[in-house]
Amino acid sequence: MSDIKALLFDVFGTVVDWRSCISHEIRLLARQHDVACDAEQLADEWRAQYQPAMEAIRSGQRGFTRLDILHAENLDHVLAANGITSFSAAEKAHLVKAWHRLQGWPDSSAGLYRLKQQFIIAPQSNGNIALIVNMAKAADLPWDVVLGAEIVQTYKPRPEAYERACDALGLRPPDCMMVAAHNDDLFAARNTGMKTAFVKRPTEHGPQQTTDLTAESDWDFGVDSFLELAEQLGC
Amino acid sequence: MSDIKALLFDVFGTVVDWRSCISHEIRLLARQHDVACDAEQLADEWRAQYQPAMEAIRSGQRGFTRLDILHAENLDHVLAANGITSFSAAEKAHLVKAWHRLQGWPDSSAGLYRLKQQFIIAPQSNGNIALIVNMAKAADLPWDVVLGAEIVQTYKPRPEAYERACDALGLRPPDCMMVAAHNDDLFAARNTGMKTAFVKRPTEHGPQQTTDLTAESDWDFGVDSFLELAEQLGC
Repeated sequence: MSDIKALLFDVFGTVVDWRSCISHEIRLLARQHDVACDAEQLADEWRAQYQPAMEAIRSGQRGFTRLDILHAENLDHVLAANGITSFSAAEKAHLVKAWHRLQGWPDSSAGLYRLKQQFIIAPQSNGNIALIVNMAKAADLPWDVVLGAEIVQTYKPRPEAYERACDALGLRPPDCMMVAAHNDDLFAARNTGMKTAFVKRPTEHGPQQTTDLTAESDWDFGVDSFLELAEQLGC
Repeated sequence: MSDIKALLFDVFGTVVDWRSCISHEIRLLARQHDVACDAEQLADEWRAQYQPAMEAIRSGQRGFTRLDILHAENLDHVLAANGITSFSAAEKAHLVKAWHRLQGWPDSSAGLYRLKQQFIIAPQSNGNIALIVNMAKAADLPWDVVLGAEIVQTYKPRPEAYERACDALGLRPPDCMMVAAHNDDLFAARNTGMKTAFVKRPTEHGPQQTTDLTAESDWDFGVDSFLELAEQLGC
């Protein structure tokens, strides 16, 4: 493992706790409007539209489109499906920006500071640059460089998403390790030749989570936190 | 000036002292080969090929090409013109990577840390991503995000280079300030609507420098160091 130069991170779920933050902001806005709703359920429905929206771009049906725009379109669908019509355009725009204000898991910031001492650390996220930069400032995530969909002009798990990110760093995939809480992300990364680290995030989808509770393959590392990953990598 | 959200920096000359570092590495290699040469002169000749090489890309004659590749091509030209044939391919590749190892001016790192507390700070350089990331690690330049030619797919001073960088941050040009030691960079940035800060770097081209010794327009700020800029911006 001594040839690893860079760690590339999935962000939503792996670095930040999107469900708690998004449901919190939905709840606040719903209360202001006296709208009765299950905020966690709405957050889950919003997130459920994420993969289908990206699929149109991955498949080439639609040109590359930033995640901020997909989030806005998907929010409109979810609100309409739930009969919620009272949010203003400005309030909806503010809610879309909630993805820029997500907070890290308790170990995320401290772990990244340790890992950064020895490796290039970069998000390889489907989030757009502005989203990831604003989140980094708010959640104290000390990225060396922001990689991701907007740089590579496609969405994970397309192989080009990983290959182009490594290439942007002037590195080959075996010199880079993908760090993610999602087994499917790691399968796709390993297929390009990248190293892999699975970080267990058992409450990403709430207390009843059923997916990604365990490593589904012999990933190079399997840890419960970024601090444990730093420990195992000797940082 | 209270609407400024992001500071975009020219890098070569503004943040790092390319001439001292490049001539130093040329001198070391020349000595190993018993090649008599004026290392500063060779560094200047290498740098002089920089603008013409980018012009082919700016004008559309050539597709976007990373600066690392242009640096390698230009080095071959300069060595050939000076009759230097003894450097191996590996040595030349190492010399091309010297641009990844440039050191900051004495105030650069400390100034960026202060500015980062209040603003998004990003290089908007003609350097490619790997070059800028490796330099940042070596010279302790705490960028929030790496913008620049490889993100915007063209070279300064094309207006798109500035406009696309601001847009990647989700910001309008008036919300961003270009920081540069070169008046021509600032003229181009201001034409897109960006704010401007001139930082005097009177020895970028050595002790006999004749260009960019003074602000050639009423830039929003004019300073002698990043620490002075931080002071004036209240950081």
